[in-house]
Amino acid sequence: MKLHTYWRSSAAYRVRIALNLKGLECEQVFVSLIAGEQAQPGYLALNPQGLLPALEFDDGSVLSQSLAILDWLEAAHPRPPLLPADPLSRARVLEIAHVIAMDIHPVNNLRVLGALGARFGADAAARRDWMQHWMRLGFDAIEPRLPGTRYALSDAGPGLADCCLIPQVYNARRWGLDLTPWPNISAVEGACLDLPAFAAAAPEAQPDAS
Amino acid sequence: MKLHTYWRSSAAYRVRIALNLKGLECEQVFVSLIAGEQAQPGYLALNPQGLLPALEFDDGSVLSQSLAILDWLEAAHPRPPLLPADPLSRARVLEIAHVIAMDIHPVNNLRVLGALGARFGADAAARRDWMQHWMRLGFDAIEPRLPGTRYALSDAGPGLADCCLIPQVYNARRWGLDLTPWPNISAVEGACLDLPAFAAAAPEAQPDAS
Repeated sequence: MKLHTYWRSSAAYRVRIALNLKGLECEQVFVSLIAGEQAQPGYLALNPQGLLPALEFDDGSVLSQSLAILDWLEAAHPRPPLLPADPLSRARVLEIAHVIAMDIHPVNNLRVLGALGARFGADAAARRDWMQHWMRLGFDAIEPRLPGTRYALSDAGPGLADCCLIPQVYNARRWGLDLTPWPNISAVEGACLDLPAFAAAAPEAQPDAS
Repeated sequence: MKLHTYWRSSAAYRVRIALNLKGLECEQVFVSLIAGEQAQPGYLALNPQGLLPALEFDDGSVLSQSLAILDWLEAAHPRPPLLPADPLSRARVLEIAHVIAMDIHPVNNLRVLGALGARFGADAAARRDWMQHWMRLGFDAIEPRLPGTRYALSDAGPGLADCCLIPQVYNARRWGLDLTPWPNISAVEGACLDLPAFAAAAPEAQPDAS
């Protein structure tokens, strides 16, 4: 299988971490968001939505949406687990993952930033304030839900919440957000970045990093 | 258990449908978004994020995030299933659900619309154009993924994709979007609205509708 990815895409970063945690080999195909390749006919033929990432199976079929890809990974390759077996514990992990994947990331997506500029003339400072505003609200929601475990909700190992949290913290640093108000989040980030699966998935470690 | 809900919240509407499909009784607690009750201390004590819905268990613990609640419902009450057992079929249902829950709804959330007004002076027409823009992109992504089955990806019965799609189509009608370009979506809506589980979950059928 092939992962269509871009080094700085938070959503692709989530999937890279999960593939590494599962120990799965996956060819990477690089789609440059900065060059607009996601809107070119070649990529649109694979994923008409023009968003990253997309997982292409050996039969040519394509699965998009990073959290649908993570769900498939967990169901098809259950070891090591990224979600607990107990229904409520599992939902608690998804709750944190979804604060990031639904309440922060979509509102801060590249195409939304572009629309703010095109429709409302948002300049660089207004776009940065917009980014930071939604990250703050999301991190404020997550911080008290972290019980002080090594990883997001577990001491045993990282899970799906960590797969979403670490790329979002990377993005926060990139946009100049001071992380001091969220010590639990920062501690989880430190623990995750010590793991080879996370280090190898980091944006700067990708072949298409520039 | 209790569902903290508002009649016009798309995310609460998803959960109401799923509870009905599962045949589960659930007390409703009404939180008026239009009166700002989600930002009052009483509700913030339950869900500090101030978003709807929230599911309150009998022991007082609270689960937020509509798709985390749906995941819990599916794991704790598996019959009738809202997701297929096969990993890839399951992910295909989530793919559609996430186009709605990640790429349309968060960008069109009440608090985002408020921020567009407060930060960029977006007037009523600009807000409507914003809403319709993201709905169009999302519906364009979903329409070709619907194979012409009675429900989103199945003839047998509605699933998690339908739980997300029908509230989004309701919202689209509310914002004056002409649905003619998406006949598959419209047909699935018609089939779902014929079912008592969907009819009873509809916004106008709720006790707090005004």
